[in-house]
Amino acid sequence: MGLLVVGSIALDDIKTPFGQIVNALGGSSTYIALAASYFTKPIHLVGVVGDDFSKRHIEMFKKYDIDLEGLQIIKGEKTFRWSGRYHYDLNVRDTISTKLNVFQNFDPIIPDKSRKDRFVLLGNIDPVLQLNVLKQLINPMFTICDTMNFWIERKRNDLLKVMEKLDVFIINDSEARLLSDEPNLIKSAKIIREMGPKYLVIKKGENGAILFSDNVVFYAPAYPLEDVRDPTGAGDSFAGGFGGYLHKTQDLSLENLKRAVIYGSTMASLCVEKFGTKGIENLSSSQIYARFLEFKELSRFEDNTSGLKT
Amino acid sequence: MGLLVVGSIALDDIKTPFGQIVNALGGSSTYIALAASYFTKPIHLVGVVGDDFSKRHIEMFKKYDIDLEGLQIIKGEKTFRWSGRYHYDLNVRDTISTKLNVFQNFDPIIPDKSRKDRFVLLGNIDPVLQLNVLKQLINPMFTICDTMNFWIERKRNDLLKVMEKLDVFIINDSEARLLSDEPNLIKSAKIIREMGPKYLVIKKGENGAILFSDNVVFYAPAYPLEDVRDPTGAGDSFAGGFGGYLHKTQDLSLENLKRAVIYGSTMASLCVEKFGTKGIENLSSSQIYARFLEFKELSRFEDNTSGLKT
Repeated sequence: MGLLVVGSIALDDIKTPFGQIVNALGGSSTYIALAASYFTKPIHLVGVVGDDFSKRHIEMFKKYDIDLEGLQIIKGEKTFRWSGRYHYDLNVRDTISTKLNVFQNFDPIIPDKSRKDRFVLLGNIDPVLQLNVLKQLINPMFTICDTMNFWIERKRNDLLKVMEKLDVFIINDSEARLLSDEPNLIKSAKIIREMGPKYLVIKKGENGAILFSDNVVFYAPAYPLEDVRDPTGAGDSFAGGFGGYLHKTQDLSLENLKRAVIYGSTMASLCVEKFGTKGIENLSSSQIYARFLEFKELSRFEDNTSGLKT
Repeated sequence: MGLLVVGSIALDDIKTPFGQIVNALGGSSTYIALAASYFTKPIHLVGVVGDDFSKRHIEMFKKYDIDLEGLQIIKGEKTFRWSGRYHYDLNVRDTISTKLNVFQNFDPIIPDKSRKDRFVLLGNIDPVLQLNVLKQLINPMFTICDTMNFWIERKRNDLLKVMEKLDVFIINDSEARLLSDEPNLIKSAKIIREMGPKYLVIKKGENGAILFSDNVVFYAPAYPLEDVRDPTGAGDSFAGGFGGYLHKTQDLSLENLKRAVIYGSTMASLCVEKFGTKGIENLSSSQIYARFLEFKELSRFEDNTSGLKT
């Protein structure tokens, strides 16, 4: 049984103060699948593209051993396109254009073999489609899901239905505040976990990520990067590293989820160092593990005291 | 020899969505001295107040064993007053009024015994005064200094002169970006450390704090607080816990500075739970140590893997 990944596949045009790329392979499930591929296989990708989707992009998925039985290629139509520009402060992004194209009528059909997959990673797409995917699965054991402010605002009720079925819900801090209508992030996390997810991960960009469980809060720092070239895909790479590591280890203990958060942060930090998917291409296992260990060192301190008493 | 603390002493009126206080003891050196008093003594406070400063406030300093030989009480004049209001999102604060009063002509005179102090903690005041203090010291060994955007914008050259003499410079993230004119915080830290300070601590409020040294970055998480009632004095309490712990241990190794950052974060997290100085009053050593240990748990994870190889 494999790791089922469902989300968007896109062709991106990205401009940042440090350069630009056009026609680049993008979309939530692309980053998720690539990042997860370093940890585990098989990865079953379900998505849709048009017949403008190049062989080069197909080859890329194959290179990383990503199973494409669930990839629909719609003849005479075009692939989902996104174009965005980042400001000098990379936290600010303008979407220049979004052309849904084939995505407008996407109906994710899960191939028979993938309906048995017990680990599911739902990338950021319409919660109606996310629900549709979950309904096709025979006996899912562990479901991880991402979303964005657009769906929180426009499809809140559908999103709430998805949330009831989740093991891990992954969102960023502004999305958490929007969803819970609560500025304090710790209270916000409580409110969101009451909506269904067993675990909640709140991503905070350059401020790291936080994992919430019953009475447990775990902080993962952000890797101190001097050169962030393109933040696109960071959150999806996080989800891919997180889910890929969990699928590899098949260990769903809280302690292992903490490690998964660090592997997620590792993949996100590698992603943003280069444009598009380049930061998560051609990595070695030892490169990924070396960064994981650096994360450990970032927040390590020893308590050699026995308190304040003198 | 003691820990010399120089900064403002104020009477504050504070309003937050959770309540308000008037005429409360405040100012940078008040919070610093109180927070540090749990770790070490003697603490030599140098500051100025008017004759409206109540006995109750003097008694408060005495209760925490804070030496007031350097406290100037100016007859016929009034104490520095600050009045501020926090928004629903506690990260946003309006200053309603600032009345410098006695602070306008403050000339910090360091008592003879304190001129020998080797640990100095300069709270946020005019960098001209901070320089003036440093010139009076006989043989300072370890100097810690805080500042704010106002001085970065209005007295940059004086601040740069102070920075040349510092062991530890403590600022928040927006101040770091302002001072360095660089949005990337890691690059910003490099630029600022080149201005003089051996170590730099960047405070990030609800995102923790980062310690920068040569080739070392240490992240302290923020304590996950559901009820932040009043953020006033958090940064000063951080400085007090940080400096108090270092003075107590007299250990200036990087590993001990990391612990000092956690003790600083501990005091800041206790401070914001109540109004004004109330959060750092009447604490027990074991209460402070318990929170220190909770900080350790917040970012702890074990690496039981030997990498990604399967």
